[in-house]
Order: sequence, then structure tokens, then C-alpha cells
Amino acid sequence: MSKDIVRYDPDKRLSDMVEYDGTLYLAGQVGEDVKVGIKEQTESILRQIDKLLARGGSDKTKIVSAVVYVSDMRLKPKMDEAWLAWMDSKSAPARACVEARLGSADTLVEIMCVAIK
Amino acid sequence: MSKDIVRYDPDKRLSDMVEYDGTLYLAGQVGEDVKVGIKEQTESILRQIDKLLARGGSDKTKIVSAVVYVSDMRLKPKMDEAWLAWMDSKSAPARACVEARLGSADTLVEIMCVAIK
Amino acid sequence: MSKDIVRYDPDKRLSDMVEYDGTLYLAGQVGEDVKVGIKEQTESILRQIDKLLARGGSDKTKIVSAVVYVSDMRLKPKMDEAWLAWMDSKSAPARACVEARLGSADTLVEIMCVAIK
Repeated sequence: MSKDIVRYDPDKRLSDMVEYDGTLYLAGQVGEDVKVGIKEQTESILRQIDKLLARGGSDKTKIVSAVVYVSDMRLKPKMDEAWLAWMDSKSAPARACVEARLGSADTLVEIMCVAIK
Repeated sequence: MSKDIVRYDPDKRLSDMVEYDGTLYLAGQVGEDVKVGIKEQTESILRQIDKLLARGGSDKTKIVSAVVYVSDMRLKPKMDEAWLAWMDSKSAPARACVEARLGSADTLVEIMCVAIK
Repeated sequence: MSKDIVRYDPDKRLSDMVEYDGTLYLAGQVGEDVKVGIKEQTESILRQIDKLLARGGSDKTKIVSAVVYVSDMRLKPKMDEAWLAWMDSKSAPARACVEARLGSADTLVEIMCVAIK
């Protein structure tokens, strides 16, 4: 396990994921298509998280912490539908879900998490 | 100190606390009774954090980082009253406090923190 | 590298930075003068982050994760101007940027980050 900082898909503004000493810090992920509903946006985000974690040699059972930002708290149940369908039932992370306006008016959900390799 | 991921009170959606390699990641905690004021809700949250940290072999002097979400920034001073009464004066964590609507309209404060064993 | 928790500028409420085992947890930083625009506030924050990281034996190329809170998402491009001018182009952290009302009505941006020594 490297003691170097490893960056995945770095651009000038942010990296999609940063690894250090076995911990993976993921950037806030948003859905690829923000014209769809929050459940579909969440599903898109979770697929992206799966892909990023796989590249880091980890998977969703090793997420330790997550913050879910929803643009409207009334939409949380639909986000949670996608979350529950995806989440391994024995390895859910510490999580908070709060309301925040996001990068665009159509962005209904954004998830930022920390995982272990 | 275990190199396994240990989950406290896991349910399908989230775990109340996740431990890895001596770091404790706590889920966002909200007051047990959200019909009371923000000071009382904060006191309830801090008691829950005390209990969780004790179960992980830690305590409030070992919190390294905390994010406090308040539903209305005008209520922050009342949250801080409870925080200051609780916090050990020499071991305050790095903290941010921002406004966010929370899980229910009556939920006035939520605190998410990271601690060391 | 110390396995003790080291606190920088602790007061009763929070510490500006907390170090443990080579990881630096920074408190949410706000601009020193909140009567200026968001770009200037961001520049002030980034100078403070530089100073804190230097005291911890680190620098901006070792930030692994950052959350940027902006008081109005329409101001994000101006925050990003300051961010991009400051950020080392090969070492950007995992980042999320969300909207949240902050400690005062004039506080337009707050940044909380985690770095490695």
C-alpha cells in the first residue's frame, strides 16, 4: 500500500478520487444526466462510485463515511430507494443527508464519500 | 488496533459509527426528540456522540473534525451554548458550521464527526 | 510522525487544525474580511490554508479532500477563479462544492479540507 498520494483523473480544479495510505477520498459525484429524476441521478452516481472504487482496488462494502446532499429534502425518499437497492445490507457507511443547492438547478443529488482499500 | 472495518449499529441504510485503523467515522447525529429547542437537541446529540465514542474506546477529547449543520444560522448561538458546555476546553476539533435543511422540518441541528481511538 | 493528536490554535469551541498520524484536519476557513467579494474572500481563505498547512509541515499539493460551501451557487465561478489560480494543476484534491448559508450574511464562502503531511 503506497504512502504516496495517488490522484485519479486529476484536472486543474479537482481529482475524482485521491488515495493515501489505503484511504480513498472521492470527490462529490453527480449524475451524468441531470435531466432525469433523483432516483435515476442517484443510480448514476452509485455506478460512478462503483467504478471509481474498483479502480482503487476497493468496493462499496468498504465505504466508511458518506455525505449525501439533496437539493430538496422532500426528494430524499427517492434517493434512499436507489441507495438501499445498491447498498450491501451489512456494510452501510456512517452517513449524513442534508439539503443543499448543488452545481446546477437540475442537479438533485450529490454524494461524497470516503472508502478503504 | 484492528485493520478490519468495524461497524456499530449497522442497518441497511447506514451505520451509526464505522471504525478503521483507529479512526472512528460517526454518522450525522440528530436529537432523539426534535420537538425541543436547538440547545436541547444539541445536548441530546452530544450525549449520543459520548455514548458512541465510549463504545469505540474513545471520548470527546479525541474528536479531530466535526461538521455542524444548523437548520437556521440564527440558532447557531444556542447550539454553541450546548457545544461549549460540553467541549473539553483544550481539545476542540477542527469544525465547520453551516446552514442546511435537515431530515425533518423540526430537526434543527445535525452533527457529523471523526474521532481517534 | 506523532501518534498524538496535535491541535493548532485551539480555543474553547474549535481548533484551526488538528493533526493525527500524518493527517491534517482543517477547520472551515472563512475570509478575514467578509465585506469584499467572493473571489477576494476565497483568496483570503486560500492564504490561511497555505499558512496552516505550512505550520503542519505540509502544503497545498498535499490536500486530499475539500468541501467548498458557497452562500450562493451563482457566485461559484468567481470562487473557482481564485481556486484555479491557486491550485497546483497536478495535485487537485477530491472536492465538492455546495450551497449553504454561512456564519454571517456577508460570509460568501467557507472551505474545509483534509491534507497529508
